Amino acid sequence: MNRIITIGREFGSGGRELGRRLAEMINAAYYDREIVSEIAKRTSLSEDYVHQIVEHRPIVAFPIHVGRSFYPMLNPVWDQGQAVYQEQHRIIREMAQKSDCVIVGRCADYILREQRPLRIFVYADMESRIARCRERGEDAGRLDNGETMTDKELKRRINEIDKNRAKYYEFYTGQTWGDRLNYDLCLNTTVREGSHSGCAELSRAASAIARLLE
Amino acid sequence: MNRIITIGREFGSGGRELGRRLAEMINAAYYDREIVSEIAKRTSLSEDYVHQIVEHRPIVAFPIHVGRSFYPMLNPVWDQGQAVYQEQHRIIREMAQKSDCVIVGRCADYILREQRPLRIFVYADMESRIARCRERGEDAGRLDNGETMTDKELKRRINEIDKNRAKYYEFYTGQTWGDRLNYDLCLNTTVREGSHSGCAELSRAASAIARLLE
Repeated sequence: MNRIITIGREFGSGGRELGRRLAEMINAAYYDREIVSEIAKRTSLSEDYVHQIVEHRPIVAFPIHVGRSFYPMLNPVWDQGQAVYQEQHRIIREMAQKSDCVIVGRCADYILREQRPLRIFVYADMESRIARCRERGEDAGRLDNGETMTDKELKRRINEIDKNRAKYYEFYTGQTWGDRLNYDLCLNTTVREGSHSGCAELSRAASAIARLLE
Repeated sequence: MNRIITIGREFGSGGRELGRRLAEMINAAYYDREIVSEIAKRTSLSEDYVHQIVEHRPIVAFPIHVGRSFYPMLNPVWDQGQAVYQEQHRIIREMAQKSDCVIVGRCADYILREQRPLRIFVYADMESRIARCRERGEDAGRLDNGETMTDKELKRRINEIDKNRAKYYEFYTGQTWGDRLNYDLCLNTTVREGSHSGCAELSRAASAIARLLE
């Protein structure tokens, strides 16, 4: 049976970085944005559009009026959301059958629940997450016009992304995102000054997790 | 600087067992009930009484009437609770200065926060906790008359003990017990059938944690 590790993560917590290091360490495949590319290929939707679907709350496609409760069935946005989720489901199951793998996000912990993956959740305090976003220097810390976000703006953005992830996860799994009972291990990547033993160092954390899999 | 590991744990989750194994593995001192014995010695209170104080909500010593808000200062039960906490505080700090150590419960994560301990929280689902209580065959699963508790009675007892721990922790630290941001690592010891990778095996978990400390 393949060793499967799924990583749920708060935005800016370093979960992807941890996943990548762990995959290298145990010589496993690493899947993250690759899943989005594969869905795009199979559904003929653009990568950007697929990314938008999987990172946004599916709930937006729902009708607000009670009297229109069958509307989603006829809603093309809703249909696409469903198609993307189904394709994602299929791809993740295929990946898990192929080899040992680390899969970041995308409800993989739930989709693969019968394979009993090692389910990890990575989190950190807001200050560390803001700092990590800035270090990464990605678009996350920039406004649409390219200007750098203030801490307040970045905090709002981080909270919004996580809120969307939570809604997406809850919609497709019926479980609460980040609820510790859904994970085997929750890891705090908050950088603590002067720490000699914390989990701030992702390599050490990855190495510890690798031992769990031995 | 000594390596200090603090373990918060849900009742029946195996946190003490994990702590013991980890202490053996890294050759550190292990403190759990030893702290109660030491407090008893220093305060001349009985061990049972000290245990009762540290496992019960401190709030019981509070007055309900607003008009008697200075009453706690004159309440001998309240005074004893304070004395026990202060002694505990002193003992835990002494222990942490003496050598590498693993300390279970007793707000040690908060008391030693300046020493930056590795803070672990151990938890499991209710079914596993009930099973563990029964396996341990301790008083936890028995009524006062020695009869075995039903699952429902045991569940009520487990919830009550944890509720008291939470109140005690919150009272003395101002933090939420079990809130993941107060810990570096949260570990799920739920026994999952057919699992090849979960954290059910405490030795493997202890070994992984030991690697975090290397």
